[in-house]
Amino acid sequence: MTFQPPLSGKEQDETEEFRPRFDSNGLIAAIAQDTSTGEILMLAWMNAEALSKTIETGRATYWSRSRGKLWIKGETSGHFQEVVEILTDCDQDAIIMKVNQTDAACHTGRKSCFYRRIDGTSRLIKSE
Amino acid sequence: MTFQPPLSGKEQDETEEFRPRFDSNGLIAAIAQDTSTGEILMLAWMNAEALSKTIETGRATYWSRSRGKLWIKGETSGHFQEVVEILTDCDQDAIIMKVNQTDAACHTGRKSCFYRRIDGTSRLIKSE
Repeated sequence: MTFQPPLSGKEQDETEEFRPRFDSNGLIAAIAQDTSTGEILMLAWMNAEALSKTIETGRATYWSRSRGKLWIKGETSGHFQEVVEILTDCDQDAIIMKVNQTDAACHTGRKSCFYRRIDGTSRLIKSE
Repeated sequence: MTFQPPLSGKEQDETEEFRPRFDSNGLIAAIAQDTSTGEILMLAWMNAEALSKTIETGRATYWSRSRGKLWIKGETSGHFQEVVEILTDCDQDAIIMKVNQTDAACHTGRKSCFYRRIDGTSRLIKSE
């Protein structure tokens, strides 16, 4: 799958064509949200190939910036994300995937990567 | 407010100190989520100053990449985001703000910026 380039301004906001806007590193932000609870599970990155594979396979596939490679979520852990629906935002530089998450989304073993709340200034409170 | 630098690996995952990891452009991804419905409203960016101001004022403040300036959400539209809670993720390169959104989060006038669903391949379906 290849993607058409983004349009500008209001055209991009209102088009009914998917024209993802990749950043200068060729990446788009991808939020995984639990489709049943609405809980945000993680935020990661996709290049065009990862985005293509996610759409085609129905399994969330990211680009690992630290490892510099494509990364099928769950390929080693078994913690796959089955994609139910994908939304994009006004300027199409981010997507939300509503997913069915097998077990934990976070590599620490927690359901969500967002397990710490900022307390006032510089302290974090763990939710679990 | 100044932030301490991130730690590495598991230390960063488990620390109870807020040590945000800004990217090579000095930015962190910030997701605004409606605190009552769980709907994701928008994704934007913060530099250290924007993050500081958000924490200190309780009003979501971003860094506008296109305009190259600090941007208090609602300063021109009146569509402020009152921050109820802030969460960060395992490696602390993203935050979620649970917010009370005045009127619309999106500059198009829609409640959420994520108003289009990707239909199969390259088409978008508007939800409203």
